[in-house]
Amino acid sequence: MNLEHLPQIPRFCGFSYDYDEADWVIFGTPYDSTTSFRPGTRFGPERMRVESWGLESYSPYQDRDLVDLKVHDAGDLELPFGNPERALDILEIYTMGVLEDDKQPVMIGGEHLLTLATVHALSRKYPDLELIHLDAHTDLRTEYLGERLSHANVIRLISEFIEPQKIHSFGIRSGLKEEFEFARANMDFHPFSVKGMGKALEHLKESQVPIYLTLDLDVLDPSVFPGTGTPEPGGPDLRELLAELLGLRGLNFVGFDLMELSPPWDESGISTAAAAKLLRELLLVAVG
Amino acid sequence: MNLEHLPQIPRFCGFSYDYDEADWVIFGTPYDSTTSFRPGTRFGPERMRVESWGLESYSPYQDRDLVDLKVHDAGDLELPFGNPERALDILEIYTMGVLEDDKQPVMIGGEHLLTLATVHALSRKYPDLELIHLDAHTDLRTEYLGERLSHANVIRLISEFIEPQKIHSFGIRSGLKEEFEFARANMDFHPFSVKGMGKALEHLKESQVPIYLTLDLDVLDPSVFPGTGTPEPGGPDLRELLAELLGLRGLNFVGFDLMELSPPWDESGISTAAAAKLLRELLLVAVG
Amino acid sequence: MNLEHLPQIPRFCGFSYDYDEADWVIFGTPYDSTTSFRPGTRFGPERMRVESWGLESYSPYQDRDLVDLKVHDAGDLELPFGNPERALDILEIYTMGVLEDDKQPVMIGGEHLLTLATVHALSRKYPDLELIHLDAHTDLRTEYLGERLSHANVIRLISEFIEPQKIHSFGIRSGLKEEFEFARANMDFHPFSVKGMGKALEHLKESQVPIYLTLDLDVLDPSVFPGTGTPEPGGPDLRELLAELLGLRGLNFVGFDLMELSPPWDESGISTAAAAKLLRELLLVAVG
Amino acid sequence: MNLEHLPQIPRFCGFSYDYDEADWVIFGTPYDSTTSFRPGTRFGPERMRVESWGLESYSPYQDRDLVDLKVHDAGDLELPFGNPERALDILEIYTMGVLEDDKQPVMIGGEHLLTLATVHALSRKYPDLELIHLDAHTDLRTEYLGERLSHANVIRLISEFIEPQKIHSFGIRSGLKEEFEFARANMDFHPFSVKGMGKALEHLKESQVPIYLTLDLDVLDPSVFPGTGTPEPGGPDLRELLAELLGLRGLNFVGFDLMELSPPWDESGISTAAAAKLLRELLLVAVG
Amino acid sequence: MNLEHLPQIPRFCGFSYDYDEADWVIFGTPYDSTTSFRPGTRFGPERMRVESWGLESYSPYQDRDLVDLKVHDAGDLELPFGNPERALDILEIYTMGVLEDDKQPVMIGGEHLLTLATVHALSRKYPDLELIHLDAHTDLRTEYLGERLSHANVIRLISEFIEPQKIHSFGIRSGLKEEFEFARANMDFHPFSVKGMGKALEHLKESQVPIYLTLDLDVLDPSVFPGTGTPEPGGPDLRELLAELLGLRGLNFVGFDLMELSPPWDESGISTAAAAKLLRELLLVAVG
Amino acid sequence: MNLEHLPQIPRFCGFSYDYDEADWVIFGTPYDSTTSFRPGTRFGPERMRVESWGLESYSPYQDRDLVDLKVHDAGDLELPFGNPERALDILEIYTMGVLEDDKQPVMIGGEHLLTLATVHALSRKYPDLELIHLDAHTDLRTEYLGERLSHANVIRLISEFIEPQKIHSFGIRSGLKEEFEFARANMDFHPFSVKGMGKALEHLKESQVPIYLTLDLDVLDPSVFPGTGTPEPGGPDLRELLAELLGLRGLNFVGFDLMELSPPWDESGISTAAAAKLLRELLLVAVG
Repeated sequence: MNLEHLPQIPRFCGFSYDYDEADWVIFGTPYDSTTSFRPGTRFGPERMRVESWGLESYSPYQDRDLVDLKVHDAGDLELPFGNPERALDILEIYTMGVLEDDKQPVMIGGEHLLTLATVHALSRKYPDLELIHLDAHTDLRTEYLGERLSHANVIRLISEFIEPQKIHSFGIRSGLKEEFEFARANMDFHPFSVKGMGKALEHLKESQVPIYLTLDLDVLDPSVFPGTGTPEPGGPDLRELLAELLGLRGLNFVGFDLMELSPPWDESGISTAAAAKLLRELLLVAVG
Repeated sequence: MNLEHLPQIPRFCGFSYDYDEADWVIFGTPYDSTTSFRPGTRFGPERMRVESWGLESYSPYQDRDLVDLKVHDAGDLELPFGNPERALDILEIYTMGVLEDDKQPVMIGGEHLLTLATVHALSRKYPDLELIHLDAHTDLRTEYLGERLSHANVIRLISEFIEPQKIHSFGIRSGLKEEFEFARANMDFHPFSVKGMGKALEHLKESQVPIYLTLDLDVLDPSVFPGTGTPEPGGPDLRELLAELLGLRGLNFVGFDLMELSPPWDESGISTAAAAKLLRELLLVAVG
Repeated sequence: MNLEHLPQIPRFCGFSYDYDEADWVIFGTPYDSTTSFRPGTRFGPERMRVESWGLESYSPYQDRDLVDLKVHDAGDLELPFGNPERALDILEIYTMGVLEDDKQPVMIGGEHLLTLATVHALSRKYPDLELIHLDAHTDLRTEYLGERLSHANVIRLISEFIEPQKIHSFGIRSGLKEEFEFARANMDFHPFSVKGMGKALEHLKESQVPIYLTLDLDVLDPSVFPGTGTPEPGGPDLRELLAELLGLRGLNFVGFDLMELSPPWDESGISTAAAAKLLRELLLVAVG
Repeated sequence: MNLEHLPQIPRFCGFSYDYDEADWVIFGTPYDSTTSFRPGTRFGPERMRVESWGLESYSPYQDRDLVDLKVHDAGDLELPFGNPERALDILEIYTMGVLEDDKQPVMIGGEHLLTLATVHALSRKYPDLELIHLDAHTDLRTEYLGERLSHANVIRLISEFIEPQKIHSFGIRSGLKEEFEFARANMDFHPFSVKGMGKALEHLKESQVPIYLTLDLDVLDPSVFPGTGTPEPGGPDLRELLAELLGLRGLNFVGFDLMELSPPWDESGISTAAAAKLLRELLLVAVG
Repeated sequence: MNLEHLPQIPRFCGFSYDYDEADWVIFGTPYDSTTSFRPGTRFGPERMRVESWGLESYSPYQDRDLVDLKVHDAGDLELPFGNPERALDILEIYTMGVLEDDKQPVMIGGEHLLTLATVHALSRKYPDLELIHLDAHTDLRTEYLGERLSHANVIRLISEFIEPQKIHSFGIRSGLKEEFEFARANMDFHPFSVKGMGKALEHLKESQVPIYLTLDLDVLDPSVFPGTGTPEPGGPDLRELLAELLGLRGLNFVGFDLMELSPPWDESGISTAAAAKLLRELLLVAVG
Repeated sequence: MNLEHLPQIPRFCGFSYDYDEADWVIFGTPYDSTTSFRPGTRFGPERMRVESWGLESYSPYQDRDLVDLKVHDAGDLELPFGNPERALDILEIYTMGVLEDDKQPVMIGGEHLLTLATVHALSRKYPDLELIHLDAHTDLRTEYLGERLSHANVIRLISEFIEPQKIHSFGIRSGLKEEFEFARANMDFHPFSVKGMGKALEHLKESQVPIYLTLDLDVLDPSVFPGTGTPEPGGPDLRELLAELLGLRGLNFVGFDLMELSPPWDESGISTAAAAKLLRELLLVAVG
């Protein structure tokens, strides 16, 4: 058929580049098996793919347009519920494949534990990788309910192969006393707020050290972002967060993720709208 | 990349055939512009595509499996809200393209008005086409709120090019006095119930006349199928409807549709689950 | 019967003046036929009428009370779904009737396209009419999905009979690149924020030029106002908006509207509460 | 103004007769102050008024049309929360006013306790009044949480002025052991089912004794009618109930009510649709 | 304090016996880590505990009362998300403790996989244990997404230590072709319906063989029981299921469970109400 | 049994002290019988008890931990719906019992009227008691819908036994003209905002006068706290409120309450999360 109007399968932001043409690859990781409180992030990628239809590709904040980027939407990985170790293996192998093809990964979660695999893959290619970590929770436990692999200790696990002082945490307002003490003693730790993030990371622009940004969306205040597993009141609103993220332009991004969108707790859809908008802005910031 | 686990974009029932290989083509029509009561069927195709993931491909009722059918999922048509005439044109042209390529169409709505375009396209290829119409509403108005094109008069419009006695209606339990009088006088009209449908249509198996089945899902009782624009209590449950549909095997189906799934009114997802199951069973019945 | 306690039909804010006694006429326009993303504003007027029961008539912000205003609640117009042209005609004729009776209109939407008809009617009576436009979206497309009449280009259509520089836009944060360029070049355009609106419009108090204010409620941040068709994160909260609206007292208002409340996406009712409160404050500001 | 299209305030089923012209008067009683489990029936009348818009006035079951009945929608009574005694007084006085004007009352609840006042008023005008009682619950407690006035003992209170054997109960499937014993010993008691109701009450057609029917909508199975305060699984579906209600035509109805619709638990709207349909059918049965 | 009115913590059905006095022990297992489609059964026990408040302790079906049973509510087990093996270990050890204390276990799930641990513990004490299995799904896979431990193969795993012909399955209507073939060849398999269950198991009353009943609540039709992870339309309604369960009185029950209630998909609460009612009836049937 | 993993009944924040050991006693008051707009606060205590599971016991704001406090969770009082007078009696007697045992009460509502009983009990023990009152509404009516006992006049009733100038009100933004006049004339009244509360109450730290704090949670903006009966837009967000509450440390608290959480309007759970977090912070502030 050769018609003007043909049916189409929805893609993130309408991205239409093939894998081979693309510089960046977006993929979804619908997985929430270790979520301890309210599950549902497994539905995050699907919801964002559909809702990104309601988003303009043009950013008036940056005066740039997504149509100018070469991005491929690969779809969603199928990960085995109830076996986090194997899920992480599958994800790490896939991410390494993307990197070997000289493309940069953008992951849409899914629970935060998954960031472990993506960052591990990246740290093998980029040994001097540094991590920007936005979150409401420390994620620094040494174990959680007796388990080593959990959304509640993903950053602690990452700190085993990225030196803690290369982990730059912002917005954190919940955790154990021990976690706060560890963070304050060892990491580049900016609790309670995201204000001043741009400034605090300015020096990383000069060094052009490779950067991965992991955005646990629950860093946003629950009024702005109710749709997440463990809402923690007292965070920044979207304007505060967006202003700081725009300040990161110029960093040498080699990948990033948006994690913990949980559509079942997002009846009104405002969390998904916020996530989709942040995806657009981060892509325009990161691709540079 | 050549990995075992690769991300995938969701398709109806996981159908993976390309357009060229397929005998049947499924497409979505996310459109509800003339819906008078509760809009939302525009989200029907997307929801069914995602939720069909939860459905087994094997039917224990028919002891047959969808994996044995050659079906292509073409995605969703983009139709202009606020202009039903142009929407119908786009849909009719697309359907004709499918038919010209010697494939049979399966439409996932979307509002019932759209059936007008699909049936019109089919009736040009199959001049002796007959229509099986399952619905809670007569859809036989001559106008609705002053408009000729409306979900409330789609069957009346079809009756202008398919003789009313070739329209076989079942399950109808709501309408104007005039509509019931018209139906009783002119059509093959079986109000209130779907019981006996299989038997009543048995003669069409011998003649092998081409058949289009339009399933307005609101024919089901709202307890089974709350997710629709105008719920009309007092309909059959799924077991009653399914039993009758299985009895249609052997008819010469040239196309069919499932219309009026409205996910915003289906919080629990049971309507979508019912629609997906009926899609599987109808495919296995129709493809024969 | 002559009893103390008699049943009553709910009216906006309990307004009890007859049409003939009233200076201002409120009416609902339950219509969302061109809504492209999430329909539902058709339920806006009904919801606001009911929920305004929960609102005090006294404004502590202005130290004034609605009971001192002569307002009539006319009910809701019935507009034909699927035919925007005729809907606009019906609305324009009705608005002209209100104006001919020397009353001022207050419209409760419904989708933003409807503002076209009301403003057109007003501009015939008040040729020097100026427009205050609060919105998250530019609404300046020249067409949308091939259609000329759409919520996405209502301001562009209005700019054909009100000079663009007489259109004062605030809060806009989403649109095409071309729309932002048009707005910046031709209109009195204040994107991203509503801050300073009172000040920016101060000169209109002296000239006492007739003013219509169209409030697309999605100008509010989705955290405050989730219940709308296309939520756009990053807007003002209620305190910011209210402070600016209070600053408009003294302008020569000849009508206003509150559009795009969509109750199906407002489970918690906070959007409706915000809309009802803004209706009260705007009435007290506008009637003066 | 003298226009074709004018705004209108919604009324039950679009009833447009004035009070003076009408034979029957519908009024709402938004009250649920003694509800012990899940409150929300206070929103019942408003929801039914709005949703009855989606209902045809023609009943294909009875081949009759509501437009042929003289019914007035009086609106909703305002009853004081937290003071059941005074609420009952206000309601009883209003009902007596309706009866004195030679009109018959139709009440839309609200909680079932309110039936006490309406039946009391009627029993004063009709000393030989008999009661048809459809319910999932016995409502025969002598007190509830220490209170004499409660939705849980309304029938027991009525049995103090209508002899128990003149109370015909159907569908009941929940209560205390003592309540079932009282009912079995003293009333015309048909637990678990509504089947055979028409037949069991046939003799009342001959005597033409005045009848009040109180329909606690929770008699329906929760699958059909989830929107109620105390859902009790195991009841009839709508077809079963409707068939029995149609069999009551010919009784001398002097009033009836539909109680316990609780919209907050009716996300999908199917309960409201069922209630509106039953209102239509009962009106056509009762007015005769 | 020695007051009449003291605060109380909610318990299942208000059970107030201490562990030592009780013959039966109810406990919750809030766990859904291998759930593949829609998680949420982790909230089942908590919801049932609260909602059982709305349930009478008296069963008019059996003319018996829960207050006459010695039951202890032990609360909920905390099980580690993401590690099914350890979760099963903890549960099995706890169940063995209950059995050693000569009490019988009643488990409220949680996902169906957990039944594996409870049945395993029971089979060690009762080597001739037989299993009654009510379900919509076969649960007979040999693996699921590569995992051995999954809700989708719990019955297959049980069949490794209870001979398949001692597993009596009813109501199943979804699965793979291989699963249906295995079931038909090896088990006491009654697909599609629960009708006749009482009769089919009559012989087990004579032998007084020890019986465990596992009730996957999704065996009910989704209209009756929407609140579950994988709704499968076409099942029995509550009256059908209840009638069959009542027919099981006289069997030698040594334990039972109610699994797969998922409150997030049960907005209206009707699933929880059904589950609570079935718990009451099963207790009265089982305790005998 | 003597196992590591035993089931447990959920308690507020996991508090495990017995009544006798405790210094503070938390109890729930599930009651909303006089609520005039949207009922549902009766579900507040149960929801908070469950959701407090998701909250860390450690406060990074105060660097203190709940595990160091001696708090007993007594459960919920059962109060008779429809009889506010008796409900208040039961509550006052219970509170006096707590005080006589030299423990301090923490009440989780339930509607605001209940504060009347608790404060009355406290004022008998502490004749110089002063009240800190955070609210969106004045609650100063002399009657409401003809009733003296109502959530809308609780503070007026309290002002009959605590001198108005000892009532310190913050955040109020809704009420009648007369209420605002009464408050301004007689009370320590700080409308519209909570800013500066800490400072304004600084002098009470020196005098160490006994303080009861009543937190009507609707003082928060509905974006932060949608789950309440009468949402009033324009309030503080959580960060603003929390900062002021932290400033109250050092006051001589003898009790406090958190009222008006209404879970049915809190689909996303963010209101419950905010309430639980405020409970933790207030406990750590009050216990000192």
